[in-house]
Amino acid sequence: MSNRLWGTRFSKKTSALTDKFTSSISFDKRLAEYDILGSIAHAKMLGKQKIIPKGDSNLIVKGLRSILSDLKKGKFKFDLKAEDIHSNIQDLLFKKIGKPAFKLHTARSRNDQIALDIKMYLKDEIDNLSELITEMQGAILRLAGRNSKIIIPGYTHLQVAQCVLLAHHLLSYIEGLERDKGRLFDAKKRADVLPLGACAFSGTGLPIDRGFVAVELGFKNVTANSIDSVSDRDFIIEVLADLSILSVRLSRMAEDLILWSTKEFSFIDIDFSFCTGSSIMPHKKNPDILELIRGSVGKIQGDLSSVLILMKGLPSSYNRDLQLDKPPLFDAIDTVKDMLEIFIPLFENIIIEKEAIVAKLNDESLFSVDIVEYLIKKGISYREAHDIIGRMVKDCLDKGKKISDLSAQELKIYSPKLKPDIRKILNAQASVNLKKSYGGTSFNSVSKQIKNWSKRLRDTF
Amino acid sequence: MSNRLWGTRFSKKTSALTDKFTSSISFDKRLAEYDILGSIAHAKMLGKQKIIPKGDSNLIVKGLRSILSDLKKGKFKFDLKAEDIHSNIQDLLFKKIGKPAFKLHTARSRNDQIALDIKMYLKDEIDNLSELITEMQGAILRLAGRNSKIIIPGYTHLQVAQCVLLAHHLLSYIEGLERDKGRLFDAKKRADVLPLGACAFSGTGLPIDRGFVAVELGFKNVTANSIDSVSDRDFIIEVLADLSILSVRLSRMAEDLILWSTKEFSFIDIDFSFCTGSSIMPHKKNPDILELIRGSVGKIQGDLSSVLILMKGLPSSYNRDLQLDKPPLFDAIDTVKDMLEIFIPLFENIIIEKEAIVAKLNDESLFSVDIVEYLIKKGISYREAHDIIGRMVKDCLDKGKKISDLSAQELKIYSPKLKPDIRKILNAQASVNLKKSYGGTSFNSVSKQIKNWSKRLRDTF
Amino acid sequence: MSNRLWGTRFSKKTSALTDKFTSSISFDKRLAEYDILGSIAHAKMLGKQKIIPKGDSNLIVKGLRSILSDLKKGKFKFDLKAEDIHSNIQDLLFKKIGKPAFKLHTARSRNDQIALDIKMYLKDEIDNLSELITEMQGAILRLAGRNSKIIIPGYTHLQVAQCVLLAHHLLSYIEGLERDKGRLFDAKKRADVLPLGACAFSGTGLPIDRGFVAVELGFKNVTANSIDSVSDRDFIIEVLADLSILSVRLSRMAEDLILWSTKEFSFIDIDFSFCTGSSIMPHKKNPDILELIRGSVGKIQGDLSSVLILMKGLPSSYNRDLQLDKPPLFDAIDTVKDMLEIFIPLFENIIIEKEAIVAKLNDESLFSVDIVEYLIKKGISYREAHDIIGRMVKDCLDKGKKISDLSAQELKIYSPKLKPDIRKILNAQASVNLKKSYGGTSFNSVSKQIKNWSKRLRDTF
Amino acid sequence: MSNRLWGTRFSKKTSALTDKFTSSISFDKRLAEYDILGSIAHAKMLGKQKIIPKGDSNLIVKGLRSILSDLKKGKFKFDLKAEDIHSNIQDLLFKKIGKPAFKLHTARSRNDQIALDIKMYLKDEIDNLSELITEMQGAILRLAGRNSKIIIPGYTHLQVAQCVLLAHHLLSYIEGLERDKGRLFDAKKRADVLPLGACAFSGTGLPIDRGFVAVELGFKNVTANSIDSVSDRDFIIEVLADLSILSVRLSRMAEDLILWSTKEFSFIDIDFSFCTGSSIMPHKKNPDILELIRGSVGKIQGDLSSVLILMKGLPSSYNRDLQLDKPPLFDAIDTVKDMLEIFIPLFENIIIEKEAIVAKLNDESLFSVDIVEYLIKKGISYREAHDIIGRMVKDCLDKGKKISDLSAQELKIYSPKLKPDIRKILNAQASVNLKKSYGGTSFNSVSKQIKNWSKRLRDTF
Repeated sequence: MSNRLWGTRFSKKTSALTDKFTSSISFDKRLAEYDILGSIAHAKMLGKQKIIPKGDSNLIVKGLRSILSDLKKGKFKFDLKAEDIHSNIQDLLFKKIGKPAFKLHTARSRNDQIALDIKMYLKDEIDNLSELITEMQGAILRLAGRNSKIIIPGYTHLQVAQCVLLAHHLLSYIEGLERDKGRLFDAKKRADVLPLGACAFSGTGLPIDRGFVAVELGFKNVTANSIDSVSDRDFIIEVLADLSILSVRLSRMAEDLILWSTKEFSFIDIDFSFCTGSSIMPHKKNPDILELIRGSVGKIQGDLSSVLILMKGLPSSYNRDLQLDKPPLFDAIDTVKDMLEIFIPLFENIIIEKEAIVAKLNDESLFSVDIVEYLIKKGISYREAHDIIGRMVKDCLDKGKKISDLSAQELKIYSPKLKPDIRKILNAQASVNLKKSYGGTSFNSVSKQIKNWSKRLRDTF
Repeated sequence: MSNRLWGTRFSKKTSALTDKFTSSISFDKRLAEYDILGSIAHAKMLGKQKIIPKGDSNLIVKGLRSILSDLKKGKFKFDLKAEDIHSNIQDLLFKKIGKPAFKLHTARSRNDQIALDIKMYLKDEIDNLSELITEMQGAILRLAGRNSKIIIPGYTHLQVAQCVLLAHHLLSYIEGLERDKGRLFDAKKRADVLPLGACAFSGTGLPIDRGFVAVELGFKNVTANSIDSVSDRDFIIEVLADLSILSVRLSRMAEDLILWSTKEFSFIDIDFSFCTGSSIMPHKKNPDILELIRGSVGKIQGDLSSVLILMKGLPSSYNRDLQLDKPPLFDAIDTVKDMLEIFIPLFENIIIEKEAIVAKLNDESLFSVDIVEYLIKKGISYREAHDIIGRMVKDCLDKGKKISDLSAQELKIYSPKLKPDIRKILNAQASVNLKKSYGGTSFNSVSKQIKNWSKRLRDTF
Repeated sequence: MSNRLWGTRFSKKTSALTDKFTSSISFDKRLAEYDILGSIAHAKMLGKQKIIPKGDSNLIVKGLRSILSDLKKGKFKFDLKAEDIHSNIQDLLFKKIGKPAFKLHTARSRNDQIALDIKMYLKDEIDNLSELITEMQGAILRLAGRNSKIIIPGYTHLQVAQCVLLAHHLLSYIEGLERDKGRLFDAKKRADVLPLGACAFSGTGLPIDRGFVAVELGFKNVTANSIDSVSDRDFIIEVLADLSILSVRLSRMAEDLILWSTKEFSFIDIDFSFCTGSSIMPHKKNPDILELIRGSVGKIQGDLSSVLILMKGLPSSYNRDLQLDKPPLFDAIDTVKDMLEIFIPLFENIIIEKEAIVAKLNDESLFSVDIVEYLIKKGISYREAHDIIGRMVKDCLDKGKKISDLSAQELKIYSPKLKPDIRKILNAQASVNLKKSYGGTSFNSVSKQIKNWSKRLRDTF
Repeated sequence: MSNRLWGTRFSKKTSALTDKFTSSISFDKRLAEYDILGSIAHAKMLGKQKIIPKGDSNLIVKGLRSILSDLKKGKFKFDLKAEDIHSNIQDLLFKKIGKPAFKLHTARSRNDQIALDIKMYLKDEIDNLSELITEMQGAILRLAGRNSKIIIPGYTHLQVAQCVLLAHHLLSYIEGLERDKGRLFDAKKRADVLPLGACAFSGTGLPIDRGFVAVELGFKNVTANSIDSVSDRDFIIEVLADLSILSVRLSRMAEDLILWSTKEFSFIDIDFSFCTGSSIMPHKKNPDILELIRGSVGKIQGDLSSVLILMKGLPSSYNRDLQLDKPPLFDAIDTVKDMLEIFIPLFENIIIEKEAIVAKLNDESLFSVDIVEYLIKKGISYREAHDIIGRMVKDCLDKGKKISDLSAQELKIYSPKLKPDIRKILNAQASVNLKKSYGGTSFNSVSKQIKNWSKRLRDTF
């Protein structure tokens, strides 16, 4: 009997090139644990249902447990000549328990088995990712908490706009990351449906009990259509899309920090332990980690593209093309986990350059909206107020004057409602504190948000 | 005063090229209705909060309602020289009510306004998409119902595999489409958070009531961070990803039907009303609609890519790049709606080529798994049974024999357990009916699924 | 006779939905001119070869010329109910000349006709794009020429690195743009092969003369395989890839300029005529054009993706999916042309902020490589020199000292070879002028490059 | 001294996470050979130019040659703790020759060094790819030659269209593959420009001779701008785009063959040695290789996307993001080479199912264009002929008649010009032989093309 799960009908051996080209063991070996656990549940069910003798079932389960234990101890022998991880484990089982091993693959096909393995893997990794995201939110929150009074110039279009609390800016990251967790949670919900039992694609004539297997493996549901069960790779694409959105977020955070750590902005200093140097310029201290995070969107989005294209126009049910869904999935999950893992301590070690920041707050254009709102409160329409202040700003820039230096007379030229008391709002503290609207950047609002998030993140654990 | 919402500070007019290059009215005009509705709610709130006089608020609301009514009657004048739809509406309002129009844009920026418009648009379109998907499921279900006894050869790797019910195959589409609705539902949930009130990106010093606006516009929540409110385009990418997954599904369904309608497969006939001909070959009847559906994955995935790339590495808060998020979103939603709309009647009009299908069911290799399971039931291990049948199939092919013609003697050569009674299972009816496992293709299971879906889809409406 | 090019064999009319869904006139109308020119050449050939009577050929040519003249005068009536531009023109021809119009589509199919139209369009647009690129290179070169003495701090990893000439930086754009032209030139070469005459996909039994048509239409070659002629869309993907590379370049140039025009960098000022303002912040002057250019990579790459996916896995010869190749092609070409057109005057109007730049050149870390090379010239190995200067820089930073203030004694601590004469190279002029290696940033090298490019670009016209 | 090429200025060690996250040795180790060869040329130049002592130069060259020899013997020790392959080799050199090793990195940075390594690698791989493509063309040509008389039904829209020679169909693949080689050739031309000598990004003050290095390494040109030299990754994207186009072609060829090897089409039989079986269905023989080839477009296009996104919006000169360009490049080149390598023997071993094919040629609709052209030759306009035959085809289908069975009387109903002699062209031989237009499918044309390609491909070697 060949050490393959098929081949008797073949009148010729497959070419060595074929074996190499079609082999998936080099990457699906990472599913070994899930494959074994799935097989244990399957074997128990086969015994319980008397599809195979109880004794054989027990032997198989024992054998698989022993293989699992080897795997955990790093003693599992990955056989790069095996066609895939399923065959590899089947072979090892035969070595352990002999002929009863031949009964494991009853009422099962690799088509439903691989769908099971990936779903089990995905469910676990979604949990891991969610935990890492929560840790990252924690690190950001602590940075916000430690610097809750720091005001920075905020930007739109990368041009100086209005003052905001640094903590407010940091909390915006936490908001987005929370949505990322929500998306992953929803994806897990949809992946939490057992495909095993669909066999090749039509079900089986043997009296299997799919509900039992689902309970054994902790699945919430069982797929209702066998063809869909082996055709479906939605759950992979959905997670890749979620990770793409997350990686876009990380790239934007990285860009913020890269800019802030330039000499020109000087808002922050990335700790030496998270920078690298140059082989030619001895003075360099570069934010390489952030650059690599920024660039990694490409990998993740490439992985997503890859699977979307792969699936395009495939006939229903199983086609071998599906084998290619795994490398991009593994790559994306690994990459995102690596990024989160290093982003956490990087955030923990950011130094805020308080003096440099304070020096940037002198720019009075930061307060132009405050003066507009000052006029609105005095009954002037928004549009007129915008024009008045536009003209005032233009004159000050043209003449090199500061708004706070304009006399009562000079102010009156723009509007009789403009009084020297505007000077009171021409400072960062006042400006920030005016923004009391819900979600705005006032100290009060932001400190409430910090408390709120402290509680929410603590409750997650 | 310029007819722009800015510009007083500018010492020069913008170049005509600039106006053309930065204008978004050609595509954001489609948001007109949402922009007006959002402005009505905003104006009411400004009046209620006494940020502007109640009388002005009333006038503005009245003016906007009149513009909305014009829009619905097709009388709205889109001004391609306006910078964007916001400016266009602002101008029309000024023409209707004069100076009070200048108070509408109080405590608001185009940054939060456009985020609001897109979210309102998206929420509506998700509902429209979900309804179309449900209609499509209905059309497929009716086709399944009308042909509930038809057995077809099923394929894996596009090679003849096992018999399945046509209805079972069709139900697999319905399962997938249900997941698509689930994803859109989850996306809507995350988009259902009011961004208005974030203003430019920091909130406002005016006493706005965001909760009131949320209730007016039917939003479940209010964003908690103003920077996140104007930076965030997650909701667009998520929907584009959902539509990409859906379009992959539609492309696979199209591929199935294209194959089935070839002369070689001849399972179905696409009605003339959903085919086109050739300018050179008078005999042609081509499934162009299905081909265009298959190809449209490209568009949708291109739209998704486009926004992911667009967002990569952008600094937080608003950047003008974000303007480019709308054309791909609109394109994807329109394209998917068009595909669903035409797929529905196409399904309604599919003719099943019963005779041609029956002729394909003679192929005995369709029953190889059934004979394997026959042996397993007699206590032979799966692996040995697979080998036995593999050898038998090979011999039959080599010698040009049918399995059902093998004598008791000949059968015994492969295994003493193989008896002439296997002939009973060598037919499509028996084969299908054996697959009684949950989710399998037996008549019973499938007819239960049809009933189940009839109820579920009815309940949706 | 129907006004379609097919349909007699159909027993039913196509559904209105089908007509709408499959129609391409809304976008292929832009190929009208090429379609007419192609038809003129085709009709001449049919007459010359006596496939149709000479008189009919003349009539057709005359009719088509009249339609072309209408088109150029804006009098062409696009019929949105026509299936495509080919049918639209055919109908107009019938209105002009009656029955002889029915002979035009002899020995031709829409399959080879559309391939011809796109290739003609592409060849023209590649020329247009190349010209625009050359104009853009000219604008950049003039900016470099006008500011040939300006030294700026150069960056790697966005951290201050070494001094370079602004002109040297600008010339790097010109180098890249020249490669872009090269790629487009190569793409044109490959597209310059006449597909007409392939008919549906197998050629024709009528005695056509493809060489004649090629000469008439200015094609260098004629396709050698009829199946390939109608299947092939390589030429579209190649151009989309070339435009993607170009758009990445434009996005990087935009990013440089966005950074340089921040208050923090202040290297340049974008002219008011190429900026826009804010509806809420009266002081804002935003580089929106550059942001839109940066974001447009998304569109172009989305267009490329779209066609790659579209083509994946299609059977050979013509499939209707191919219709979807045109919208992304047109979108990408239009977008890139728009970007180039506005980038040219934007570059023309950039103001260099000389004083702000000079102020940035005091940073002595800009010269660290120069001191390393000073030591290498004195026989110290690169590695030791790098370490010596690394230590010196560290000490200066830690103690807040300038390198130029270190005494001979202090210098000796790091290396006996370090003498106070290093002060001579601690300035931007000296530093830049040291880089005399070919391709380096010395005044001499750069001014030679400027002269060289002036000649090359002039020669292009 | 640290075993890094930098770090003296750092007041702290980098975190272990940083080292792991930024390390590239796991993938750039594949550039080892090019890195060594580049360093040998560089060291020779440093000696020749007296930048380092001749003796040191000789020692370095000797040391590097010894490392190269180790590498070729598989004795090179890849140090996964090294930051990158450059550092790894530098360390080994130090172990071999001691302190003179510290002089190798003079007048060089890793920024220009890595650009050099990739270009050298790419040039070699483009040659390898071109050779494989030529071999594949050869395999296809031999298959065409061996079966030069076989006629198959040709398809458009996957619906039966017209007869073509199988060889004609196969030659269409060869045409496309030739364009693929052309594109790679052009890409190589643009990559064949030496970047070394740009150093970090501004050139150097040491008297290097870049022309000498170019000659040593076989580069045609030297880059003219140092900033462009280290920023530019066009050459990577261009090759990835070329490979994407090639992989789309391979996917289409795979799709053709998958369809042809279905039971329904039965045009070909893929040899057992290039198929695999099923773990559950003993009768299965699946075209897995072709499916994996079809799916691989996803990988290649994902790789292309990945680098395009990576590069989007990066500031000029070197950023660490660029490190991520290599994994997708390597992956795409490896994947395409694997696909070509297995496609060659797969083609060599295809069996043509002559009888099954002949049986398909009875379908008279295959000749509808021939009858249309028969009428055109008798002076009927194309449009009328199309209508006449359309009606005739419809009637035959409706009444279940064959065209060849229509009597002279019956034929006259459609047109007086239709005579019973049309029967002569109602067969595949006649039909194919009519298509004598250049590029058409007549025996004569095709056999000329076969000869022509035999010569061209032979000349390539």
